[in-house]
Amino acid sequence: MTYCVAMRLDSGLIFGSDSRTNGGVDNISSFSKMTVFEEPGDRVIVLLSSGNLATTQSAISLLKQRNAIGKGVTISKAQTTYEIAELVGATLREVIARDTPGFKDETGLAATFILGGQVKKEAPRLFKIYTEGNFIEATEETNYFQIGESKYGKPIIDRTITYKTKLTDAAKCILVSFDSTIKSNVSVGLPLDIAYFLNNDLKLSMRRRIEQGDKYFDHLRSQWSSGMRELFSRMPDPDWQPD
Amino acid sequence: MTYCVAMRLDSGLIFGSDSRTNGGVDNISSFSKMTVFEEPGDRVIVLLSSGNLATTQSAISLLKQRNAIGKGVTISKAQTTYEIAELVGATLREVIARDTPGFKDETGLAATFILGGQVKKEAPRLFKIYTEGNFIEATEETNYFQIGESKYGKPIIDRTITYKTKLTDAAKCILVSFDSTIKSNVSVGLPLDIAYFLNNDLKLSMRRRIEQGDKYFDHLRSQWSSGMRELFSRMPDPDWQPD
Repeated sequence: MTYCVAMRLDSGLIFGSDSRTNGGVDNISSFSKMTVFEEPGDRVIVLLSSGNLATTQSAISLLKQRNAIGKGVTISKAQTTYEIAELVGATLREVIARDTPGFKDETGLAATFILGGQVKKEAPRLFKIYTEGNFIEATEETNYFQIGESKYGKPIIDRTITYKTKLTDAAKCILVSFDSTIKSNVSVGLPLDIAYFLNNDLKLSMRRRIEQGDKYFDHLRSQWSSGMRELFSRMPDPDWQPD
Repeated sequence: MTYCVAMRLDSGLIFGSDSRTNGGVDNISSFSKMTVFEEPGDRVIVLLSSGNLATTQSAISLLKQRNAIGKGVTISKAQTTYEIAELVGATLREVIARDTPGFKDETGLAATFILGGQVKKEAPRLFKIYTEGNFIEATEETNYFQIGESKYGKPIIDRTITYKTKLTDAAKCILVSFDSTIKSNVSVGLPLDIAYFLNNDLKLSMRRRIEQGDKYFDHLRSQWSSGMRELFSRMPDPDWQPD
């Protein structure tokens, strides 16, 4: 499985993804689920993927290949991030349609993407693209999307993130959200990819891979874990009891 | 949807359930998902249910009706909680088989139970019963079960609960777990039922319904929420940034 999250904030967009694609006992594989298309000064596009790996890899390969050839609408030539969302959605549909004849049940090929980016002077935009190829866009009120194993890590986001949150705080929140997910679900695992860009930078402002043993992440996890236990021990007792 | 959780602890068993059965816009219903069979001094059995309400209600009705008639193995006559788990599993299978002819896809009728209890001098036992009617039992190492919308509220349990946790602390943890779930998922809602029994009490030691406006729950929620935000604000900054 997978866990990916992205947030649209006042100062920019931030993205996090894990890289565990198979949490089975004897077949633990690691693939990055973050794909970056960057043309500094012109556009920066980040894709996070979840679902069937054959589907997402094929869609991304086709997007890259056609971008290199440069015919028709491509990621490099699109005039808006909306056009790129349409393109990714159409490519996803195309791959599923191509691969479906071999299967009775097409749901096994399902995949979803989060797409965020900025093209030239347009404001940064964030989309969630469904298996059907259609998509929704983040707003100031609903300013984050998750895909994959999203539930374990949702409460901490709901408690701490608003549109005005600073990127550094959002990065911390994303890492805590991953920590909660990894603790409760073996199918999500390190390494993590985390990246953000500031409005109008038109390139990634920060990209970092967090591997096993990362000093900052380990410190954050242990601080959070001991802080949570300490907070829990301070919670008021109910007035109903024995014990 | 539903969220139910039960824990087997050193000093007894504890149970929590919500009562929202339909989180739709214009049809929000409330049914208790906690059913108690109590014969003080002889046995106490608690059932938590999740899934198709027609299935779970029918299974519970049949269990009660047959218990009243008293023929064959019943909840009142079983010699062990294991026998009761078999009985609940068989009744669940029976209801699904009875109602399936009308449907092509029987998964819509799926339901799961958590069953915990003590019969006479046998140690308290806790089971999770699947749609198939088979079941697993909690151990000291894996000492809690969840059914329904279980993921949002799992991290806090994984961080705080062991077999040695006191019942009062477990009750607090269950309420925080519900708070996280309710905050992130509209399909789980108040009122909540929470109950526990101490080993060898052979009756419920505590049962409480938590309604909207419950003073203790509201206090706990606001303390937890402000404590989490305060804890988050104390987390160390990453060494990678602008902002």
